[in-house]
Amino acid sequence: METLETPIKKENKNGNPAENNNSSTTMKALVYHPGKKAWEDKPKPIIKEPTDAVVKILKTTICGTDLHIMKGDVPTVTDGRIIGHEGVGIIDEVGNAVTNFKKGDHVLISCITSCGKCEYCKKAMYSHCVKGGWILGNLIDGCQAEFVRIPFADNSLYPIPEGADEEALVMLSDILPTGFECGVLNGQVKPGDTIAIVGAGPIGLAVLLTSQFYSPAVIIMIDQDDNRLNVAKTFGATHTLNSTNENATEKIMKLTNDKGVDTAIEAVGVPATFELCEAIIGAGGHIANIGVHGKSVNLHMETLWSRNISITTRLVDTVSTPMLFKTVQSGKLEPKKLITHRFKLEQVVEAYETFGNAAKEKALKVILTNE
Amino acid sequence: METLETPIKKENKNGNPAENNNSSTTMKALVYHPGKKAWEDKPKPIIKEPTDAVVKILKTTICGTDLHIMKGDVPTVTDGRIIGHEGVGIIDEVGNAVTNFKKGDHVLISCITSCGKCEYCKKAMYSHCVKGGWILGNLIDGCQAEFVRIPFADNSLYPIPEGADEEALVMLSDILPTGFECGVLNGQVKPGDTIAIVGAGPIGLAVLLTSQFYSPAVIIMIDQDDNRLNVAKTFGATHTLNSTNENATEKIMKLTNDKGVDTAIEAVGVPATFELCEAIIGAGGHIANIGVHGKSVNLHMETLWSRNISITTRLVDTVSTPMLFKTVQSGKLEPKKLITHRFKLEQVVEAYETFGNAAKEKALKVILTNE
Amino acid sequence: METLETPIKKENKNGNPAENNNSSTTMKALVYHPGKKAWEDKPKPIIKEPTDAVVKILKTTICGTDLHIMKGDVPTVTDGRIIGHEGVGIIDEVGNAVTNFKKGDHVLISCITSCGKCEYCKKAMYSHCVKGGWILGNLIDGCQAEFVRIPFADNSLYPIPEGADEEALVMLSDILPTGFECGVLNGQVKPGDTIAIVGAGPIGLAVLLTSQFYSPAVIIMIDQDDNRLNVAKTFGATHTLNSTNENATEKIMKLTNDKGVDTAIEAVGVPATFELCEAIIGAGGHIANIGVHGKSVNLHMETLWSRNISITTRLVDTVSTPMLFKTVQSGKLEPKKLITHRFKLEQVVEAYETFGNAAKEKALKVILTNE
Amino acid sequence: METLETPIKKENKNGNPAENNNSSTTMKALVYHPGKKAWEDKPKPIIKEPTDAVVKILKTTICGTDLHIMKGDVPTVTDGRIIGHEGVGIIDEVGNAVTNFKKGDHVLISCITSCGKCEYCKKAMYSHCVKGGWILGNLIDGCQAEFVRIPFADNSLYPIPEGADEEALVMLSDILPTGFECGVLNGQVKPGDTIAIVGAGPIGLAVLLTSQFYSPAVIIMIDQDDNRLNVAKTFGATHTLNSTNENATEKIMKLTNDKGVDTAIEAVGVPATFELCEAIIGAGGHIANIGVHGKSVNLHMETLWSRNISITTRLVDTVSTPMLFKTVQSGKLEPKKLITHRFKLEQVVEAYETFGNAAKEKALKVILTNE
Repeated sequence: METLETPIKKENKNGNPAENNNSSTTMKALVYHPGKKAWEDKPKPIIKEPTDAVVKILKTTICGTDLHIMKGDVPTVTDGRIIGHEGVGIIDEVGNAVTNFKKGDHVLISCITSCGKCEYCKKAMYSHCVKGGWILGNLIDGCQAEFVRIPFADNSLYPIPEGADEEALVMLSDILPTGFECGVLNGQVKPGDTIAIVGAGPIGLAVLLTSQFYSPAVIIMIDQDDNRLNVAKTFGATHTLNSTNENATEKIMKLTNDKGVDTAIEAVGVPATFELCEAIIGAGGHIANIGVHGKSVNLHMETLWSRNISITTRLVDTVSTPMLFKTVQSGKLEPKKLITHRFKLEQVVEAYETFGNAAKEKALKVILTNE
Repeated sequence: METLETPIKKENKNGNPAENNNSSTTMKALVYHPGKKAWEDKPKPIIKEPTDAVVKILKTTICGTDLHIMKGDVPTVTDGRIIGHEGVGIIDEVGNAVTNFKKGDHVLISCITSCGKCEYCKKAMYSHCVKGGWILGNLIDGCQAEFVRIPFADNSLYPIPEGADEEALVMLSDILPTGFECGVLNGQVKPGDTIAIVGAGPIGLAVLLTSQFYSPAVIIMIDQDDNRLNVAKTFGATHTLNSTNENATEKIMKLTNDKGVDTAIEAVGVPATFELCEAIIGAGGHIANIGVHGKSVNLHMETLWSRNISITTRLVDTVSTPMLFKTVQSGKLEPKKLITHRFKLEQVVEAYETFGNAAKEKALKVILTNE
Repeated sequence: METLETPIKKENKNGNPAENNNSSTTMKALVYHPGKKAWEDKPKPIIKEPTDAVVKILKTTICGTDLHIMKGDVPTVTDGRIIGHEGVGIIDEVGNAVTNFKKGDHVLISCITSCGKCEYCKKAMYSHCVKGGWILGNLIDGCQAEFVRIPFADNSLYPIPEGADEEALVMLSDILPTGFECGVLNGQVKPGDTIAIVGAGPIGLAVLLTSQFYSPAVIIMIDQDDNRLNVAKTFGATHTLNSTNENATEKIMKLTNDKGVDTAIEAVGVPATFELCEAIIGAGGHIANIGVHGKSVNLHMETLWSRNISITTRLVDTVSTPMLFKTVQSGKLEPKKLITHRFKLEQVVEAYETFGNAAKEKALKVILTNE
Repeated sequence: METLETPIKKENKNGNPAENNNSSTTMKALVYHPGKKAWEDKPKPIIKEPTDAVVKILKTTICGTDLHIMKGDVPTVTDGRIIGHEGVGIIDEVGNAVTNFKKGDHVLISCITSCGKCEYCKKAMYSHCVKGGWILGNLIDGCQAEFVRIPFADNSLYPIPEGADEEALVMLSDILPTGFECGVLNGQVKPGDTIAIVGAGPIGLAVLLTSQFYSPAVIIMIDQDDNRLNVAKTFGATHTLNSTNENATEKIMKLTNDKGVDTAIEAVGVPATFELCEAIIGAGGHIANIGVHGKSVNLHMETLWSRNISITTRLVDTVSTPMLFKTVQSGKLEPKKLITHRFKLEQVVEAYETFGNAAKEKALKVILTNE
């Protein structure tokens, strides 16, 4: 990823140095330092490659992954990095090879950067883009800032139609394509199916919302937080299960006449929840993993070898973003439901407190607005 | 499965008792007893249900699973059971609801019995047929005998066209559909792909033969037996690797420029070979398990969660049998290559000796002929 | 089909002649005669093959195809044939090879008869079953009668769970699987899509209902009957177009920014409506034909050759019936909406009058009840 | 397409004007004028957009479409246009946003230009790229010249590995992906299938070669030229039919026991050959159109409506080019077989004579070399 960081002499179409376009050369941003985070001054990003855009952030949010970063769990994130990989904004400047966008356009930022021309991008597997993938707020500076540089802007930004609800669209940067692609698409959810979603956090709830695109008959939501299970009920879950109080495997096997579910979606990322999926999956069924796992899990091949199942893993590709846009525009999908708290961007440290105490604060997604 | 065994008053179309059709009421069969096997007298099977057929065995074979049964590893097989789930034969008698076959027809016996009318059969998942699945030589008496009763004959037998090579077709009872369905189809082998087959036993070699239906560019065969690897070379493997002498992971990653393979097919059934598949699978790739596992394996979700892979398991459904027939008839597939030894049916105990010492005997599949 | 009609000596499991079970040997039925239809006496059907069932009709309905038959447009239907291929009923008697059903079970009758064991049934293409397909009320006597014989009962009937709304389920005999399989599945409707349904009769409305399983963003309904278009609005159409008053092609191209629709579903069966689909289909789109056509249509290959489209045709296979059952049970699908009129079975001639004047009577589906 | 032609001030990475790189500013090219073609002087192309490359042609060929252009049949081609959309060459110069290629790289030119960032490119439907698609030798100057400008070079060129046979690779610019994508992929050719290819010209033969990636059991080739049918035999056709002498429909229906074929591929582009495909397609089968049609065809919906078939059209997307590369490198595909004649590039007018009299000259593909 080194080359992405190498500054090159910037040239834009009218030959003016980019610095002219905006009087200030510094900005405020949330910066990761080992052991602490800070809202501090950073240089305003500039165009480095002809395919870059610089975007002024209007709204951004915090991801569960950002909490892991702040704990030091993500070794690719180094001291001084600006965090965040979600948001909507306004194009501030574009490189001379950018043709889909111009200054002033409102855009959605994808959490996944796609060059559009490598082997993986050509297979619509943007997550593994040779020069992109998940780099924002990880290998390069991210979105919890006043401005962000977006490489390969034509392939990594999406135009926001006038009049759209931009707050709702922030949910399309990561959480909804993640739930939909890794959970619903990989889980092959079909009309009439019985599905289980393990984990009712923001991602699990994004699965719940988008699984209904395919009209499953039964949607069982499993979590340890009654508040989240109640939210799930209002979002369309037909059954909820608090695995603290109940034996989830037994309950689900009983509910399904010992057949198990057609699809089990893991949205937590620990061995116990993955093994729950193994225990409840029906013959011919699909286990779709979304959770970010820190250790290996026990795969019970001694029983599963003859069960005709599939298990899938996936880092979101955000290939479904244009489709999700259409479902939001048509009212089939209401991402705004996921937003529980709102802050000013400069209150980001406070917002982390709230989001970091999700159970107590009954927080799902928080919105940070740069006014 | 009880009901399958319950004798009912047999009625056939012309009202004659079935016993009239064949003078003898006993036959010879290979019988499992805990700790020993024996070629002994057993009652000749009779029609129990209107959908049954009784088939006179012409040729049968021994499966790796039969070796496990004889060792006492398969608890569903009880004392006195006739073993075997592969073979070709001649229809001796049919129940009054059988319409696809009549006495004298030459037929291929599928290792999987399908009722054709349960929830799973309607989804072409015959392996999980409510009254069928793998029952032959397991829950009901099997094919290493002079006669065998086949339930649901219309859906569990296949007509053999006149002039076909019946010895070759025995390979279509189990081994070729298993390799093709569990390995090649589930592994989603595509033209130009790089695939690895772990295990060069009869099943692995069946994968090797049928994977070539889809023209992969590179086929890497991994085993610990040089003889089998040499056979693999002559069957179309582009690369072979003896994992006793070489670090298979390293070699394969180097060969693929550290990308890993598109498809890794597990045809052994132990943790080490499954974990090899995990280690060499490329981003976006497919691990297709065929092996019968006796214990759980370690699934490295800490690295695989973001690799966009699929893992599949499958008990063969034998849905591809009609297609395999066509490829044999057209010469695209030569199953006979897999046959290394031939015996008379009454020499079955001796045949087990040879097949059980496969490495020493350089045995792949053995054919037993009832003359 | 001859053999299906050949009476054979009936045997049932307890050896009693079937006639004992029901005192009467005649029944009432709607019979086709060239130029007229009549509610007249016919022999009550009996078991002819071990796989047969005789079903007492509880509820049946009339199909547009029945109107064609009565006009003499369907040459396979001969003088004296009992008409009708939809309905729910109670099992009156079963052959000795029937295992899924017993006397007294409530069942849904599929319009398509499937033997479950021919080449086509094994590919889930029951419409082309060698001994079945659409034979009810066509090649053999049908459902607009007090009793009907159902060949291959295990594969051609579906169990009705206790407490289900049987009137609603009559819609699952033909109209809903037809709309869903031929229109929605073949049309590859996806979340966010823009689709057009040409024809708002019962089949078009069945497409409208079942297309929403896949959450298209825009559903345009085209017809010449304002009443049906109003119904379509209440069923979920986002746009309606009366092609009598408006240039449908122009309107749709304008609505789609000259891109055309993702899927166009033909539910009428005349050249003009098929050519409308050709005119509005977008690049990469799908034209799914449902209509029964009486003549050839003009396929504009001079423009379509480079448009990357698919065109599909299909006689319904009713493979989706189990899935549709689940969506009805879960409340995702409300087939009852399609029922506008109710009659006693003996009023069937009157019901034909109403259904035959659908526009005037504002009729969609009529229910005939045998009390 | 206007903007593609608008010259902009060229800038490259080191700031030197492109003209410095090559001393001459003119070149030779084959130019279309209404009623005649000429090998004449034209300005050497220059970089117009940062995503452009200029390629020195090494080898090119003539397509059937080029013959149509020369006859004035393609109205989008205007007076003065340089013709040709196939070839291999050496990168002469790249725009400052091109990152996959540098001066001196050997490349394959795709007949389809892809921007990699429009709605269609993101769906891998490059044929309908908003700024690309088939523009080379059509809307912009093409490849039958010493140099050609390639827009969106990173997405429209493919790197040629050292040592590859470049003559063979010319066949991958158009003819092989066309046969494979429009014929084989859209026709859903599967192992064991019976397929018919109507037309044994270069495209039909490309279908014949690439269909064998999927191991059909029976391949029937139909043409009116015995020489081409003989070639087809040597390329793997199992049956050939000269439709001048024989009733193709009758022969094929007899050969298939009146079932018809699984896939019929139209590689001619006239109504008669399309209707032949309609006549021979089996229930559940696929008609894949490749031919460029000048008028509408008669679609026999009165029989086809109930046959469960699909008909597809497609302008090649060249999405399969990377895969085809692999099959050539591995020896699974030998495109060189299609080359019958070789010329120097300056002999292009003579080459047109030969290619235009294909039957007499027994010509398939001709290679033009720029030495």
